[in-house]
Amino acid sequence: MEGEPTRIMLGVNESTIKGYPHASISSRGAFEWTLEKIVRSNTSGFKLLFLHVQVPDEDGFDDMDSIYASPEDFKSIKHRDRARGLHLLEYFVNRCHEIGISCEAWIKRGDPKEVICHEVKNKQPDLLVVGSRGLGPFQRVFVGTVSEFCTKHAECPVIAIKRNAGETPQDPVDD
Amino acid sequence: MEGEPTRIMLGVNESTIKGYPHASISSRGAFEWTLEKIVRSNTSGFKLLFLHVQVPDEDGFDDMDSIYASPEDFKSIKHRDRARGLHLLEYFVNRCHEIGISCEAWIKRGDPKEVICHEVKNKQPDLLVVGSRGLGPFQRVFVGTVSEFCTKHAECPVIAIKRNAGETPQDPVDD
Repeated sequence: MEGEPTRIMLGVNESTIKGYPHASISSRGAFEWTLEKIVRSNTSGFKLLFLHVQVPDEDGFDDMDSIYASPEDFKSIKHRDRARGLHLLEYFVNRCHEIGISCEAWIKRGDPKEVICHEVKNKQPDLLVVGSRGLGPFQRVFVGTVSEFCTKHAECPVIAIKRNAGETPQDPVDD
Repeated sequence: MEGEPTRIMLGVNESTIKGYPHASISSRGAFEWTLEKIVRSNTSGFKLLFLHVQVPDEDGFDDMDSIYASPEDFKSIKHRDRARGLHLLEYFVNRCHEIGISCEAWIKRGDPKEVICHEVKNKQPDLLVVGSRGLGPFQRVFVGTVSEFCTKHAECPVIAIKRNAGETPQDPVDD
């Protein structure tokens, strides 16, 4: 007999190339790795917690042509962003449902690395799995890496799963 | 049906307080965590690879009172060190045998962080688990940390398992 399932939190984000609702290459990689190498056939022994952190669009580049005339306009943006995030999570939740592994998923807004560590504190998973683009030191200076920050600061063990070399897009900062 | 078992490499070392054959607190912690949270009841789905790296005693403090008169004296030291390492590994192999999880164990000499990364390259495990004393930044300056180095340089995903706060010895550098 086994006790409580092992709770694995996964930070997931959208593809920088394809946008919502597509999951990033590294998010999908981290998810598939977790299923294949950790969960294996023992689906009842694990529960997956999917956290998607939406980054507020501070500079508003995506909305350069939009006209904001009332508070409702801003609400509708938030509503649209939320809907996009939900579509992303739907992909992971559907996969879990097919496989028969229990899961939960939620969305937060903010700086991904800070929010992930904060949610680890809240939810106290046994393990945090994050995808990593596996950038070199030169690239990291400019983009920062969520996985490196979480490895240092999250209050639970962390695995960073690097993208397969074969899946790296032309610009490795893309995902 | 499951395919090949997930191969998890564990770096293990002796206690700095009790010496050989006792395993360090963080090694035992990492091992028990792996069994409880990852392997769970699925013992046939995993294989554990225990690597113990012996650090050559460069300054020879432990042997200040020994007299070396022939090449055989040095051989006997190496023989004794090897025997101690084997006793350490015996603990982990015996535990695996009791639980019914397949394993292998071996000893190497050198700088632990370098050797562990080198053995990862050789053995290509799916995952490397290392114990960590969870030292603060100030302490880390002086002692260096194997787990931090491996997290950056090992060619496979890495989990560092921090010691429980309650198990930290009076001097946190001890283990």
